[in-house]
Amino acid sequence: MKIAIVGYGVVGRGTHELLLMNSQQIAARAGKPIEVKYVLDTKDLAGTPAEGLAAANMDAILADPEVELVVEAIGGVGPAYTFVKAALESGRHVVTPNKQLVAEKGAELLDIARQKNVGFLFEASVAGGTPVLHPIYQCLAANQLDMAAGILNGTTNYILTKMVQEGADFAATLKTAQQLGYAEADPTADIEGIDACRKVCVLASLLFGRHTPPEKVFTQGITNITAADVAAADKAGYRIKLIGQARKMQDGKVLCMVTPALLRKTHRMAEVNDVFNAVTVHGNGVGDVLFYGRGAGDLPTASAVLSDVMEIARKGGNIDLVYWEDMGADHLANRLDYSIDALVRVKNYSFEEMQARLDNCELIDQSGDELAVLVRGVNEGVLEDFVSLIGAAPYIRVFDC
Amino acid sequence: MKIAIVGYGVVGRGTHELLLMNSQQIAARAGKPIEVKYVLDTKDLAGTPAEGLAAANMDAILADPEVELVVEAIGGVGPAYTFVKAALESGRHVVTPNKQLVAEKGAELLDIARQKNVGFLFEASVAGGTPVLHPIYQCLAANQLDMAAGILNGTTNYILTKMVQEGADFAATLKTAQQLGYAEADPTADIEGIDACRKVCVLASLLFGRHTPPEKVFTQGITNITAADVAAADKAGYRIKLIGQARKMQDGKVLCMVTPALLRKTHRMAEVNDVFNAVTVHGNGVGDVLFYGRGAGDLPTASAVLSDVMEIARKGGNIDLVYWEDMGADHLANRLDYSIDALVRVKNYSFEEMQARLDNCELIDQSGDELAVLVRGVNEGVLEDFVSLIGAAPYIRVFDC
Repeated sequence: MKIAIVGYGVVGRGTHELLLMNSQQIAARAGKPIEVKYVLDTKDLAGTPAEGLAAANMDAILADPEVELVVEAIGGVGPAYTFVKAALESGRHVVTPNKQLVAEKGAELLDIARQKNVGFLFEASVAGGTPVLHPIYQCLAANQLDMAAGILNGTTNYILTKMVQEGADFAATLKTAQQLGYAEADPTADIEGIDACRKVCVLASLLFGRHTPPEKVFTQGITNITAADVAAADKAGYRIKLIGQARKMQDGKVLCMVTPALLRKTHRMAEVNDVFNAVTVHGNGVGDVLFYGRGAGDLPTASAVLSDVMEIARKGGNIDLVYWEDMGADHLANRLDYSIDALVRVKNYSFEEMQARLDNCELIDQSGDELAVLVRGVNEGVLEDFVSLIGAAPYIRVFDC
Repeated sequence: MKIAIVGYGVVGRGTHELLLMNSQQIAARAGKPIEVKYVLDTKDLAGTPAEGLAAANMDAILADPEVELVVEAIGGVGPAYTFVKAALESGRHVVTPNKQLVAEKGAELLDIARQKNVGFLFEASVAGGTPVLHPIYQCLAANQLDMAAGILNGTTNYILTKMVQEGADFAATLKTAQQLGYAEADPTADIEGIDACRKVCVLASLLFGRHTPPEKVFTQGITNITAADVAAADKAGYRIKLIGQARKMQDGKVLCMVTPALLRKTHRMAEVNDVFNAVTVHGNGVGDVLFYGRGAGDLPTASAVLSDVMEIARKGGNIDLVYWEDMGADHLANRLDYSIDALVRVKNYSFEEMQARLDNCELIDQSGDELAVLVRGVNEGVLEDFVSLIGAAPYIRVFDC
């Protein structure tokens, strides 16, 4: 099978390299050799494994009937969207690790793929090389699934891990992470939770069969987390993690959000550290299952991309299980309607007054005029009003699913 | 699609119940309704969901051309083997959670399935409902996989967890586990590592494409583990877990065994506690990935069984990726040829003498005439000879992959 790789950055090149590295067994398992016929990128490919494979443009690739599949590794939704749509419409299978594209345009692209009877697979879009999507729609297919939640961004998990281990503050830890290459020069998409939001939207869309638009998902990053938060959490028996969650609530609505969250130290995801990702899925037959591994990186991501390519090589376009439709966002819950437990740090405010207003409060720590208080079973709307009224730092919710 | 369930114990009945519970969505995702037409069991089915579905015998089931698939839930290799073979030979698909059957007879049964072009799937045979086998042969297909290792038995993991938490000895903890229903009246297959051995054989056969016969796999249970071992391990920074491992060594041989093992407390599987299972798989693209969940129980196991049934309903027999052959056992390594780190507890023997004989030794603990010593980088054959010579308790190896 001849394929084209569009975008030859970390993931595009990694995919090519892993294909060359494991070509023999990939051919055996895919039932046929898989060969990169074209690579499209704006940079010079001389000296790379793609030397001599440069395509002039996307049209040249799609004009070649030998090309059966396009790997999109540009990222974003600009040219990537145009190219993927054109490839699917021309009857080519597409494999992509592009979470933004799948989160924002998945419903439309899946619909085109279905009409054209081609494959559109994106296992690498959530948790990189760690198998998550296939296990959900295939191995857990017999379950009614009501939750997917996890640590979906390696950069923020690295920063939070170091803040715990070194008692350091956010800004200093970010700087170290950048120096070590674990955070990008412009880290906004990671530290503001935007990347995790895209992944949780892919999970939510897959689990509940409805497009979950990222702009409707409450998204909080980790930029406000302080060493004092980490210390108070520790004292109360928790770790702070950036958690993306999509949960069907008792009222049938889907609560979908990305926020820093407190995980009890014995929680199965509390010790998922450094750049690792983990996703827990809950089904009514299986209970909780967890998938854990590297959420990024050239070869881990390439592992998922190529396994998708191999699946299509074996079976052609078989996308009947991966499907969701855009039916608006009225399936989404409003977080302010539900009861939560949360850690609140307040200044110049007495514990007694807090207790009187919020009921179920536990004093965790007190230093100077600052209190760390664990509030249990409070309506989030009420808590948000309270925090904003007294000008306290953002509360951090407990995640105990 | 009409199916038969053969064996109506915990798993057979659980499979039937989950099918009834989630029937609508199972039909939607499988592309057709799935209906249990027959149940075969020696006990009376009155008052169960199978009332009125009793088949007279296996022949009656196979005589009905409407039955396309048989779920084997008898267990063992006696009648289960006969029935599965007959079902496959008659052109029926088979799904089973029976690890003993797959470990011992997998190569033969896969060969029959391939000849008859029917499906033979057994996701539930390793780690119950937790997806492990599909992720390995599908989502990680682009990798050269060189290791699968994990905590594969819930009963022993429960016992070891309690021994750590309560400082209790093995015998007392086993008794409690039996009272709570976490260990069977005859716990031999669990506590002697036999159950874990079958699962590691399934993993090894799948990973390396060669039948790995259980009788060739060194298998040590946890009956010799004492509270003193647990305490010494803790002091040295380790937890004791029953680990099944199948690893390709540098010389190309496959080291396959089940033994108690020391996991550093920060190891990704050190805090897999109670009845939970976890499997780590390593590939040259993806690195380490881990799958975690309940390894047993009626509905978790049913989740995997039914998802396999649904896969066959969608695609028919597509077993090209799950395959191994019996080519003898000369691919297996001899554990005595390799270097290990291990905890040794000796009585009436001086640390200095040990150091002189085994070189790289670290004194962990000393109480009375007993020493706990961590030996590093010792050839296992040499260590075994030493331990047997001085009549020490069995050493416990470090697992650091």
